Amino acid sequence: MSKPPIPRKAVYRLSLYHRGLQRLRANRVATVSSAALAKAAGVKPTQLRKDLSFLGQFGTRGLGYSVEALAARLTEVLGTTRLQPVILVGAGNLGAALLGYAGGFAREGFEITAAFDLEAGRRRVGDAKMPVHPISGASEFIRAHAIKLAILSVPAAAAQEVTNLLVGAGVQAILNFAPCVLQVPPHVVVNTVDLAMELENLSYFIR
Amino acid sequence: MSKPPIPRKAVYRLSLYHRGLQRLRANRVATVSSAALAKAAGVKPTQLRKDLSFLGQFGTRGLGYSVEALAARLTEVLGTTRLQPVILVGAGNLGAALLGYAGGFAREGFEITAAFDLEAGRRRVGDAKMPVHPISGASEFIRAHAIKLAILSVPAAAAQEVTNLLVGAGVQAILNFAPCVLQVPPHVVVNTVDLAMELENLSYFIR
Repeated sequence: MSKPPIPRKAVYRLSLYHRGLQRLRANRVATVSSAALAKAAGVKPTQLRKDLSFLGQFGTRGLGYSVEALAARLTEVLGTTRLQPVILVGAGNLGAALLGYAGGFAREGFEITAAFDLEAGRRRVGDAKMPVHPISGASEFIRAHAIKLAILSVPAAAAQEVTNLLVGAGVQAILNFAPCVLQVPPHVVVNTVDLAMELENLSYFIR
Repeated sequence: MSKPPIPRKAVYRLSLYHRGLQRLRANRVATVSSAALAKAAGVKPTQLRKDLSFLGQFGTRGLGYSVEALAARLTEVLGTTRLQPVILVGAGNLGAALLGYAGGFAREGFEITAAFDLEAGRRRVGDAKMPVHPISGASEFIRAHAIKLAILSVPAAAAQEVTNLLVGAGVQAILNFAPCVLQVPPHVVVNTVDLAMELENLSYFIR
């Protein structure tokens, strides 16, 4: 693949368009204008057209986009054509909560294939009562199953050490719920979701 | 309050500094340089100094910041001095998972005081087996307890309608987990956390 990568924020917006298209498809809508799709995603139509230009030619002037074709192209570009295996590391309160939501991730194309924890033989967690393996087995599992994606929900104090282990074994992308900034090599991408920080941020705006 | 509000992104960074300071305090560190605090938050020192200028005068040239004083000032500015009441609306899989993490929110200053769902008398959920009330009682509860902050974890199809109800009753800030863009009046702030979209975004970068 020699094409330049799509910028990070544009990829987020492609996901938003993807969602909008899925809803239109569920409602049996066949075509959509750039103005309508932009509104559904909360962006300006010029932004949408610029973002979709990363996908090559799409849409017919005056007729809009084919919902089916654009959705299929986005699925392909976003890499969610096949079920993507993911491991979860850290099966404390938040990790258990996330495992409880495994069905929601699966609907979007991500399958949590194993869970690991720092405390060996912690317990079974989540609705599916998924077994939790000791972290010592994570490297081997990652290599054996070519896992590229990990959800990290360990305490902040352990997050960097666990990250080093995951990256060393081949993980290339981490969805990080630990409230800290992770240091990773350039080929690794980290998205951090800090739920308490989101609430704190909102808290500032309600006085 | 006549001071202009701090920009949205700066408020996020203040939360990052707040975290860093809490860790330093736990390690009994009394003062910190702007360079060290900036590194812990993953920002440039010039950015940190600019952000902290929103708080007024802080730090002594050559000595750095007092960890205790700066942390206290940030707690005050971020409005997390007292326990902030929050309601959760939508007690399906994700909502139940979030209620299971209620202890984590409480540690950060947010208390989930009630849970509501579209299906009346749904069930009790979470570790604390919190009762889930029918949504019809939400407006009265919000008014009676002057609730300003809500966590929204209903399906996308119901999210806008529920948002209108919450805002009508006095909610000013929403942490939205529904995968959609909510329309709200200017005095209401929405932060959206879309877990599947975060994974989809990472997925793009691992090919």
